[in-house]
Amino acid sequence: MTASDELPARLPRPADGRPVVVVVGSGFGGLEFCKKFRGDAHVVLIDRQNHHLFQPLLYQVAMAGLSAPDVAAPIRSVLSRYRRVSTHMGEVRAVNLRARTVSVAGTEIEWDWLVLAVGGVTSYFGRDEWSAHAPGLKTLGDALRIRSHILTSYERAENEPDADERRRLMTIVVVGGGPTGVELAGAMSELAHRVFRKDFRLIDPSQSRVVLVEAAERILGAFTPKLSDSAKRQLQDLGVEVRLESRVLDVREDGVRIAGPLGVETIETRNVLWGAGVAGHPLLRSVVPGIQLDSAGKAVVLPDLSLPGHPRAFVIGDAALVESDGGPVPALAPAAIQMGRHVARLIERELSEETEPSARPRFTYADKGTMATIGRRRAIAMFGPIRASGFIAWLMWLFVHLMTLVGFRNRVAVFFEWTWQYVTYQRGARIITKPEVES
Amino acid sequence: MTASDELPARLPRPADGRPVVVVVGSGFGGLEFCKKFRGDAHVVLIDRQNHHLFQPLLYQVAMAGLSAPDVAAPIRSVLSRYRRVSTHMGEVRAVNLRARTVSVAGTEIEWDWLVLAVGGVTSYFGRDEWSAHAPGLKTLGDALRIRSHILTSYERAENEPDADERRRLMTIVVVGGGPTGVELAGAMSELAHRVFRKDFRLIDPSQSRVVLVEAAERILGAFTPKLSDSAKRQLQDLGVEVRLESRVLDVREDGVRIAGPLGVETIETRNVLWGAGVAGHPLLRSVVPGIQLDSAGKAVVLPDLSLPGHPRAFVIGDAALVESDGGPVPALAPAAIQMGRHVARLIERELSEETEPSARPRFTYADKGTMATIGRRRAIAMFGPIRASGFIAWLMWLFVHLMTLVGFRNRVAVFFEWTWQYVTYQRGARIITKPEVES
Repeated sequence: MTASDELPARLPRPADGRPVVVVVGSGFGGLEFCKKFRGDAHVVLIDRQNHHLFQPLLYQVAMAGLSAPDVAAPIRSVLSRYRRVSTHMGEVRAVNLRARTVSVAGTEIEWDWLVLAVGGVTSYFGRDEWSAHAPGLKTLGDALRIRSHILTSYERAENEPDADERRRLMTIVVVGGGPTGVELAGAMSELAHRVFRKDFRLIDPSQSRVVLVEAAERILGAFTPKLSDSAKRQLQDLGVEVRLESRVLDVREDGVRIAGPLGVETIETRNVLWGAGVAGHPLLRSVVPGIQLDSAGKAVVLPDLSLPGHPRAFVIGDAALVESDGGPVPALAPAAIQMGRHVARLIERELSEETEPSARPRFTYADKGTMATIGRRRAIAMFGPIRASGFIAWLMWLFVHLMTLVGFRNRVAVFFEWTWQYVTYQRGARIITKPEVES
Repeated sequence: MTASDELPARLPRPADGRPVVVVVGSGFGGLEFCKKFRGDAHVVLIDRQNHHLFQPLLYQVAMAGLSAPDVAAPIRSVLSRYRRVSTHMGEVRAVNLRARTVSVAGTEIEWDWLVLAVGGVTSYFGRDEWSAHAPGLKTLGDALRIRSHILTSYERAENEPDADERRRLMTIVVVGGGPTGVELAGAMSELAHRVFRKDFRLIDPSQSRVVLVEAAERILGAFTPKLSDSAKRQLQDLGVEVRLESRVLDVREDGVRIAGPLGVETIETRNVLWGAGVAGHPLLRSVVPGIQLDSAGKAVVLPDLSLPGHPRAFVIGDAALVESDGGPVPALAPAAIQMGRHVARLIERELSEETEPSARPRFTYADKGTMATIGRRRAIAMFGPIRASGFIAWLMWLFVHLMTLVGFRNRVAVFFEWTWQYVTYQRGARIITKPEVES
């Protein structure tokens, strides 16, 4: 259709002779690199999307609380005043570590330094066929699909003559007791029991079932056992059934089979949400020949975050498998941000030196604390020696997320939406943009 | 998949024996009926979507200024406290005027009164093949598609080596000089010349061309010639090329051919937006056997808005062809609202009377004035003897649209977005949700 379907044109090297740093991915790590890098070089940021996505609030888009633009910021305007950075929207087709090139759409770009910040995807632990009935939550498209699916289920239930089918439509199973699963289960329970309460005539949404399924013996395993337990009780207060030590055996269109402490059980449902696994982005395997990946598809990197044998190519964020303080660095936004900053400093230093140094600093992860929200006035938080749960933790969660959200407009918009939700018990984005129901 | 694929189940008549009013469509007319109807009857509101759409601001969703939930309100929560109204989401499959039934998805509903408020669709004047390259603006899906298309064109242009193709990508042709076309052209020009200004590195968005094509000898024909002329000058101040007396001969993927006063011309472009014609919704033709339609697919109704021969079936809003004061009632929100109110009063009255009256009041349209916006601080307005243009008209436009927008949340959110846009020259919804670009 356009020139982009033809053979790639090689982008000419910059006329000023300065080196080129190519960054792939505008998540937390890639964006932080672009903002913090001060070296004497051109930076080309490549992304499939035109926006940075604030993943920690994505579940609120899925649960009809926020609109898509609230949690996304257009990359071009975020980086408008960073004149050394140019943005290239397109899908990466190939990375050549030896020739130092990246192919994107119709263009081949030569790089001197490469930062792969491609993030992760939902993992079904080898059962990819489940994805059709159990959508994960990684992109804006995922969130809007889940939103439409859930809202449509209740619309169907309202007009469904068969009582069993009505029950299936009003049952939601969330797989995975990590932060995403807990947030989805809590927000879903509030949606069904509070927000929908007076809006239906024939069904009673307060009869909905929300079930959270976790394979381990406690939810939110990254927290202390006491906080996990508090989170479980807070979820139960909201009406969520928490099933621990329960493995998913099968996901079908009309139900989930799980094996728990009391045996095998089938939960009939039309709504399964997948908040369980994260794998490295498949782009690594498909476009970077010779890259070494672990079983979850994450790239094995050296302690300085560079790829073995390729000192000028780095992997950062959720796509990188690296240890710090004896344990793996968690797949969290603060870790990705710290990695972006680490690599920015490292490249800056080597650019300003005459010769390449032999010893590079290793990346160390500074754990500044972690939080998970459960619902209205409910959360848990852990900062160094400080432990909090309930209302205080929830206020901390609100504050931190509002302050770290990218873009002033988004902060004000989200603050307004949250205030409105808190006061009215309504959700501002109960809109089905693509009706799933054919009827 | 579900019971809805099977044979329709007939919904039982209400146990309390009260009559049933079925309303199809939750636009301005249908929603006004549901809110104002006070008769002793059940009201069933059927819509394919779960939301009311505030059409007058839809162009701002397309032009990345507002998010979808800002201009949409969930029908269930809007009508939550109207206990006599129940909502049925689904597509109408058949209307039987004689048997007085409506089939929707898997259900057949008996009605005693019927209000068809199905609205209109974009008309290509018999050249439906143009729709592939010239999207219209009627639904939220349309708006999001246009937004993604325009944003993607500029992303492509940034990386396009061919200068001709770059020019095509940065040329936008808007067909139709009615309110929608004028709003789109003005907002598009501001987007290209103001908002994008500093965000690209290789292209200069201020070199964009925005062309508005109108077949008549002036734009905004519903206004006085003087106001039309003012609107034209205001558009030109924004950098829009206005082509009057120009008919579209052909729309292709790479350009538009128009016949104007100076002959036939081809404008090469990858972006054609269609703001020209409105036709009655094709649902009327496909599901209401025997209905009488005009050439634009609008239903011919009696002066009381009922269908000839079917005194208990009404058509209101853009789908109805009716005269008032010697001219056709325009396809505008205030007209649809007035029709909804008229039919609500009429059915109420006949429900409370013992016998059906022979003489019904005819519908008369009260023209409260009309406005069109062109851009920042630019608009025209006409209220009775009052004529305004420029800043004053723009303030009136802002005020009226903010006040008539459905839902308190939406009013506050839109007010914030407008203030932010006014101060920063940014747009809050520059998000491509579904990348069109495969590359």
